[in-house]
Amino acid sequence: MGKKMTLLMFSGDYDKALAAFIMANAAREMDVEVTMFFAFWGLCILRSPEHMTTENKTNFEKMFGMMTPKGPEDLPLSKMNFSGIGKQMLLEMMDDDEAPHLTAFVEGARKKGVKFYGCKLSMEVMGLKKEELIPELEIETAHTFIQEALESDIQLFI
Amino acid sequence: MGKKMTLLMFSGDYDKALAAFIMANAAREMDVEVTMFFAFWGLCILRSPEHMTTENKTNFEKMFGMMTPKGPEDLPLSKMNFSGIGKQMLLEMMDDDEAPHLTAFVEGARKKGVKFYGCKLSMEVMGLKKEELIPELEIETAHTFIQEALESDIQLFI
Amino acid sequence: MGKKMTLLMFSGDYDKALAAFIMANAAREMDVEVTMFFAFWGLCILRSPEHMTTENKTNFEKMFGMMTPKGPEDLPLSKMNFSGIGKQMLLEMMDDDEAPHLTAFVEGARKKGVKFYGCKLSMEVMGLKKEELIPELEIETAHTFIQEALESDIQLFI
Repeated sequence: MGKKMTLLMFSGDYDKALAAFIMANAAREMDVEVTMFFAFWGLCILRSPEHMTTENKTNFEKMFGMMTPKGPEDLPLSKMNFSGIGKQMLLEMMDDDEAPHLTAFVEGARKKGVKFYGCKLSMEVMGLKKEELIPELEIETAHTFIQEALESDIQLFI
Repeated sequence: MGKKMTLLMFSGDYDKALAAFIMANAAREMDVEVTMFFAFWGLCILRSPEHMTTENKTNFEKMFGMMTPKGPEDLPLSKMNFSGIGKQMLLEMMDDDEAPHLTAFVEGARKKGVKFYGCKLSMEVMGLKKEELIPELEIETAHTFIQEALESDIQLFI
Repeated sequence: MGKKMTLLMFSGDYDKALAAFIMANAAREMDVEVTMFFAFWGLCILRSPEHMTTENKTNFEKMFGMMTPKGPEDLPLSKMNFSGIGKQMLLEMMDDDEAPHLTAFVEGARKKGVKFYGCKLSMEVMGLKKEELIPELEIETAHTFIQEALESDIQLFI
């Protein structure tokens, strides 16, 4: 039977998301099945500025939507972000080494057939609508995560 | 043989603890054996304002006890806490969706038979006494965590 | 066949690194094979002030090298660091309990035969040279991490 990896994407940090998507791409290249389950801040990675909506949202949900990152390139660093200056510096250093940005790794993961799950409860609490996130995202509960993780050879909380 | 999950509860963040206890409850509902091993800041999740003591503590231990969160509802968010305003906002959003607070998930885990271990070294260093934490907590070393994790189908560092 | 643990050392925090190295030492004492894969901030744990260099580095790499922690004892806490005061307090509390500092656990792990891998991409982006880190570090890609993790009984993202 094939090998499998399940990543619980909790943190919405640029650097941690980069590490996770680099792993997801590498695992797919090695023919490992990959599931990424997005919860809480992790859901911000899958937002896109073009698909934001404020329809049918409470005031708190609207405010929350405005205050949180709007897609991969809008995420802060987990450390030394310095209001974005630290992150800008890291991006320049990545460019110097011709390392792709997060968006490219997210696109790679989508093309390589990574499975994307969004946590139902997190989406309800944060007021995120399915149409605001990537189209292949399936909405599932924590039970689905546990089931996937039980069947996996690697599970990581990121 | 039954399936098993072991969570290393390191971070004392409200949102991360919520994710962990939601998983613990879901896993128990699926008949998965669950062990939660609390170390460092994670121990603050199991404190209770009524059982705090300053007896036989050094001055540093007393100060540390005062500065750290005093139970589940006193924990900060890992992000956007804004001195508690961000957390209050999240709690209001959870109430709007009738999502239970952390305390309810901790109680659920206790009722469902999750095993609770406390890291001996962390408790000694932080000066936390057994009677300050939940009564079913067993005090164990890192070796016990490794043994439990080796026997588990899922292990996560949270 | 023997048991195996693989730790992905992403965070460069003193408390998280301490937890990881305590686990690595405990696992080796239980005859578990241990691999630690250092990426991003985690690489700072393996720096040493005596082996720093600025040769063949871009200006950003030099700045980055100056702003990031220079070895185990220079790491901040993940919480309550308070510009180092919180960390100093934790160290005093550790001394009161005769708990060794991080450096001792790193040395223990090296003596006990833990395998050390450094993430190639992270080192290139951050401009870290092999000779700035511990000599037994082998430089590997994310594919090596996935391979090691697939063969492990425990995998944790720290």
